[in-house]
Amino acid sequence: MILHVALFRWQPGVTDDDVARLVAALEEMARGIPEIRGYRCGANLRLRPSPADFAVVALVDDEAGLSAYLDAPSHARVYSDHLTAMVADRQASQLTVPDGVAL
Amino acid sequence: MILHVALFRWQPGVTDDDVARLVAALEEMARGIPEIRGYRCGANLRLRPSPADFAVVALVDDEAGLSAYLDAPSHARVYSDHLTAMVADRQASQLTVPDGVAL
Repeated sequence: MILHVALFRWQPGVTDDDVARLVAALEEMARGIPEIRGYRCGANLRLRPSPADFAVVALVDDEAGLSAYLDAPSHARVYSDHLTAMVADRQASQLTVPDGVAL
Repeated sequence: MILHVALFRWQPGVTDDDVARLVAALEEMARGIPEIRGYRCGANLRLRPSPADFAVVALVDDEAGLSAYLDAPSHARVYSDHLTAMVADRQASQLTVPDGVAL
C-alpha cells in the first residue's frame, strides 16, 4: 500500500472557519473516492512548534490508486473551492507501507 | 490517538546509504519506545513532484506518548548520529485520529 502525506502552510488570514469548511470538503471528497482506503486530515495540533498548519494523510493501494485520488475532479474542486486561496506552501511524500496499515 | 507526521528536505550531498542507515536507526529507535504504537519512515517515493525527501509517520496514544517519543534519548541520538547533518528543512504536524488507526 502507499501512504500519502501532505503538509500545508497557510496564507495570512486563513480562519478557523475556512479550515472547518476545508475539512468537511476533504472528508466528503474522500468518501466519494473508493480508491482512498483511509483518510485523515486536520489542523496541526501544534503539540510541538512547526510551521505546518494542516496535514492530510491518505492510504491507497498503489500508484494507480494515488492517481485516482489526486486526479479526481472532486479533488480539483476542493482546490478551486478552498485550497488554492489558502495555501502558501505544500509538501508531500509517499511511503510504501504493508497491508496492515489502517487510517 | 495522535498521528505525528514529519517531512524532511535534505542538505545537498545526502546519499542513499545515508538514508538507509537513517531508516535502520529510526526503526530500531521506534522498536525501543513502547509509547510508539506504530511507526513508518522512508524516502519519498516521489510519485508526484514535491521538495520533501523523507517522511516519518508515528502513532501514539496521547501527548504524553508523543513526548516520550520525541524526548527519548534514543531519538536525540538519531538526530546527533544522522539527522542533524542531513536536514535542511523539517515540518511536522499532529492530528487526532480514532483508535482504529494502525501503522
